[in-house]
Amino acid sequence: MYSILEKVDQPQDLKKLSAVETERLADEIRQLIIHTVAKTGGHLAPNLGVVELTLALHRVFDSPRDKIVWDVGHQAYVHKILTGRRQQFNTLRTLGGLSGFPKRSESEHDAFGVGHSSTSISAALGIALARDIKQEQYQVLAVIGDGSLTGGQAFEALNHAGQSGTKLIVVLNDNEMSIAKNVGAMSDYLTKLRSDPAYSRMKRDIEYVLRRIPAIGDSVAKTLERAKDSLKYFLVPGMIFEDLGFTYIGPIDGHNVAKLCETFQAAKAIEGPVLVHVITQKGRGYGPAESNADKFHGTGPFCVDTGEIIKNSNTAPTYTSVFGQAMLEVAGQDPRIVAITAAMSEGTGLKSFAQKFPQRFFDVGIAEPHAVTLAAAMASQGMKPVVAIYSTFMQRAYDQIIHDICLQNLPVVLCLDRAGIVGEDGATHQGVFDLSYLRTVPNLTVMAPRDENELRHMLYTAIKSDSPTAIRYPRGSGRGTTLEPCRTVDIGKAEILKEGKDLALVAIGSMVGAAEQASDILSRQGISAGVVNARFVQPLDQALLQSLARKVGFLVTIEDNVLAGGFGAAVAEYVSDRHWYGVKLFRLGLPSRFIEHGKRDELLAKYGLNPEGIALQVERFWQEFGAK
Amino acid sequence: MYSILEKVDQPQDLKKLSAVETERLADEIRQLIIHTVAKTGGHLAPNLGVVELTLALHRVFDSPRDKIVWDVGHQAYVHKILTGRRQQFNTLRTLGGLSGFPKRSESEHDAFGVGHSSTSISAALGIALARDIKQEQYQVLAVIGDGSLTGGQAFEALNHAGQSGTKLIVVLNDNEMSIAKNVGAMSDYLTKLRSDPAYSRMKRDIEYVLRRIPAIGDSVAKTLERAKDSLKYFLVPGMIFEDLGFTYIGPIDGHNVAKLCETFQAAKAIEGPVLVHVITQKGRGYGPAESNADKFHGTGPFCVDTGEIIKNSNTAPTYTSVFGQAMLEVAGQDPRIVAITAAMSEGTGLKSFAQKFPQRFFDVGIAEPHAVTLAAAMASQGMKPVVAIYSTFMQRAYDQIIHDICLQNLPVVLCLDRAGIVGEDGATHQGVFDLSYLRTVPNLTVMAPRDENELRHMLYTAIKSDSPTAIRYPRGSGRGTTLEPCRTVDIGKAEILKEGKDLALVAIGSMVGAAEQASDILSRQGISAGVVNARFVQPLDQALLQSLARKVGFLVTIEDNVLAGGFGAAVAEYVSDRHWYGVKLFRLGLPSRFIEHGKRDELLAKYGLNPEGIALQVERFWQEFGAK
Repeated sequence: MYSILEKVDQPQDLKKLSAVETERLADEIRQLIIHTVAKTGGHLAPNLGVVELTLALHRVFDSPRDKIVWDVGHQAYVHKILTGRRQQFNTLRTLGGLSGFPKRSESEHDAFGVGHSSTSISAALGIALARDIKQEQYQVLAVIGDGSLTGGQAFEALNHAGQSGTKLIVVLNDNEMSIAKNVGAMSDYLTKLRSDPAYSRMKRDIEYVLRRIPAIGDSVAKTLERAKDSLKYFLVPGMIFEDLGFTYIGPIDGHNVAKLCETFQAAKAIEGPVLVHVITQKGRGYGPAESNADKFHGTGPFCVDTGEIIKNSNTAPTYTSVFGQAMLEVAGQDPRIVAITAAMSEGTGLKSFAQKFPQRFFDVGIAEPHAVTLAAAMASQGMKPVVAIYSTFMQRAYDQIIHDICLQNLPVVLCLDRAGIVGEDGATHQGVFDLSYLRTVPNLTVMAPRDENELRHMLYTAIKSDSPTAIRYPRGSGRGTTLEPCRTVDIGKAEILKEGKDLALVAIGSMVGAAEQASDILSRQGISAGVVNARFVQPLDQALLQSLARKVGFLVTIEDNVLAGGFGAAVAEYVSDRHWYGVKLFRLGLPSRFIEHGKRDELLAKYGLNPEGIALQVERFWQEFGAK
Repeated sequence: MYSILEKVDQPQDLKKLSAVETERLADEIRQLIIHTVAKTGGHLAPNLGVVELTLALHRVFDSPRDKIVWDVGHQAYVHKILTGRRQQFNTLRTLGGLSGFPKRSESEHDAFGVGHSSTSISAALGIALARDIKQEQYQVLAVIGDGSLTGGQAFEALNHAGQSGTKLIVVLNDNEMSIAKNVGAMSDYLTKLRSDPAYSRMKRDIEYVLRRIPAIGDSVAKTLERAKDSLKYFLVPGMIFEDLGFTYIGPIDGHNVAKLCETFQAAKAIEGPVLVHVITQKGRGYGPAESNADKFHGTGPFCVDTGEIIKNSNTAPTYTSVFGQAMLEVAGQDPRIVAITAAMSEGTGLKSFAQKFPQRFFDVGIAEPHAVTLAAAMASQGMKPVVAIYSTFMQRAYDQIIHDICLQNLPVVLCLDRAGIVGEDGATHQGVFDLSYLRTVPNLTVMAPRDENELRHMLYTAIKSDSPTAIRYPRGSGRGTTLEPCRTVDIGKAEILKEGKDLALVAIGSMVGAAEQASDILSRQGISAGVVNARFVQPLDQALLQSLARKVGFLVTIEDNVLAGGFGAAVAEYVSDRHWYGVKLFRLGLPSRFIEHGKRDELLAKYGLNPEGIALQVERFWQEFGAK
């Protein structure tokens, strides 16, 4: 099945293959990826789209001497397979196995670690400028999707690279999609380019002539210069990139290895920054992914024959879908509600909202800073914007949260999906900093629901609020609780779920369920542990903390966030500031290190945040500090 | 002197003026601004550049019904003077007085609060989209400098606005500078536009004709479409903006009120997003500022006649200049050192570095996210990048610090100038969150020097480090300490400056000096207060804390950062986690609110962080909790 692939261990092995063998290799790689991702889950469609592109890159360039930076990096499976990691490919995204993203510690072929969008041109330019200073000679490439190009950082880097004049090749992998259908004027512009006839041959000849027109006296020269540029505009589709200092080549068929190799050879020879515009098809070669690239962008395990996603054994609806449903309900009642997402309408559960309220739905592309300022401005005009962005990506808008929303105290609702441990996507994607970075911002109410039902109430509460709010909730299935009609929750009020005589487990968000189970375990060991659903990280329920301090005097905070500056830290600050010297406080959460990839449950267990781990640690505290 | 200006209280008063009166008004406004800023300090050159532009905007548009969003907002003095704030203009940037930036709470004419760069198009678009949903009719404008256009968020917003098709006017205020000389390919492009002859009349006629060419069959139509666009490229200078969905008008002389009014009237009538490209001169009308716009971008008090800056009575060198000097020294010894700044080569003290090591200096424009990823990539190739960005602007790169630098544990040195209370620039610019947001990031060493001499040592230490480091230091003069040769500081080691029997003041950064003075005051009151220079917020000097806990058992942390999650919080977490139940801890720092503008000393006093305030609070603690 993999007769050619088995002979390819390193990129140089590729260079020996004939054209026919390379084509067959492409098929074999597709099969390997489809069958592996069908088991492990992962980013299927983006990788099927770049098989030929990756083959061509590794045939023409000389990795690791030449450096290839993959934007986002969820499309680097082919690259991993071709650079010595074929044998471990079945460990993809599993604890201790290959990462789903390029990682410098994993291979010298992974020139730069990625995971978040729109960093690749910055990184490639940094590498290229270091090369220039060290007077070394090698090629540096950034491979970036058209979706990632909507992120402002990509433009910042293009702007810098175009002026620097350093040699750098940007491969624009244009599949007309970011994750969902792409948005923005740049996307319209690329569509225009794609529909253009291929002028490349004629273009090169004419450019050759144009370059040789001598410079002459001032105003004539200027007019002539304009005429040249104007003709070039007619002939060269990518004039925006040319105007930004890049030589534009394209568009090129991204599934034709020979054509790609020829183009990359040409790009290698051109001085200064070059942009190669490659057209690929997401999901290429696998029917179900071709026809539904959105669904197969990132997928769980599926059946190869039918393309059906294998249902999670947990039948409870996800937090994401409950959020999406609640948005439909509240927006039906309140015309001021608008929804904003950054290229994640499906991932954040807003697809139905977008269909039902198209005038009140805004997908701004992969542009979190813009999304947040846009929301603040809409709120300034009396709207009620709900911004749904994954926790890890909200880090991109930290300044805008401070400067545009909270400083002006505008009632924007920030919904941070995928908060806490996200699992298989790993270190770049863990949403484990949000409680810390949000809690520092004045005027912002920060909350986390204990289950999907409470998420509904918190969303409703946030919308009724006149000041900024943030709600963070985890990836995956809820707890199967009955969904009640939306109602408000008292801001800053926690909820006692279980009274305990010995100590109180004060948990936030998805840790509440774990705390309840831990309490049961502890109870079997003779320790009476109360459970509190903290609900709010800012403001804290000071009255309840005071009452707990007085009654039990032994508190354990539990959070799936870094301990530094997080929920437990807020409680520690409060206890310290009140000078409750007798009160014993223990903080459970994540250590100050980056959390690797693996199943969410495995990682929670590894870091002692599953019910058993919590019970075990609490028992030890109790033995040491609490037992009389 | 202000005979016309005295009759202008609101924008409608402007509309009654004749052309001649308007010209004289422009002169009067310039005089008022020059004479006021000469006393208060402030952003002089940007405001002198937009006098005619602002007059024209308020003549043509109908504020506050029409909404004007100023990018950054340091150029909104004219706007403030014309919108009911002339009488208070002499209170500019003083405690309780007018803010140096537009502020919603200050006037209904300030449509959106600003301070950081590149948010205005996002904000204006948000307002415009809210208007559309509410089916209201008014104009929305963003006034953005060419410098702010280098920020990626501006591109994100252009991209969204261009596709949205909503009515919005972007006024590109092009003065060929951000704060210093502008950088980037976009800047080159604008220069090209500026040098173009004005085709506007002919252009309009031809566009009229072009629009009437009927649509015909497919491939002919496409070719014809290209021909049209190509001709347009010849005639319309701003084709990048046209390609992004904007109607481009310009370039227009930004000091000709009549021409500006005519253009804005035309822009009002055009459907969809419009970009008006206006050429202005920074510092216009005041010789010293015209010839040195960089120096007069933001200035302290100066002598109107000579243009000489009035020297601060404190003759100690600033932290900024000591940093700049130290960079020259270390870079002379180590060829791996490169410096990166985001449009702040002067403000961060890197101007001499740029001159001496042009190959190793990178001003990337107002593009903090790009700056940080670029640095990480250079570090990945063995360079030692030092990224100098103001504390408040580093918030923009929080995600890149996590994702690109710290996750990969790359030895980048982050230098956060203007940390803590910055003073007159106020709420948008206070650098009071950095200890909190940096401390949450794994692998990052976070330090703050007690004086300018220690800044040298910390920079040297950071450069010698193999992992990421951040150094934060305050605005303004150092303490006049002798500058010693650079040496390394032990990572995670604090310094005991004074032993105390009763309690220990554990201060960080610029609070160390205040703590020393507070200790003297306390000593006169019979309280023996030791002083510790904490140096590191991450890692903490645990050994020292332990010894202090044992010996004195009464600790006071002092920081010019928000208390939530900051330095004192780190100590509180540590004390709590070690279960030192007898240890008394008090945290002094800034409350969870936004800190207004005013003199740095005034604000420190207001928030109890001057020596007297510290002593007073400590004395109270001591009376309540410490005295035997």
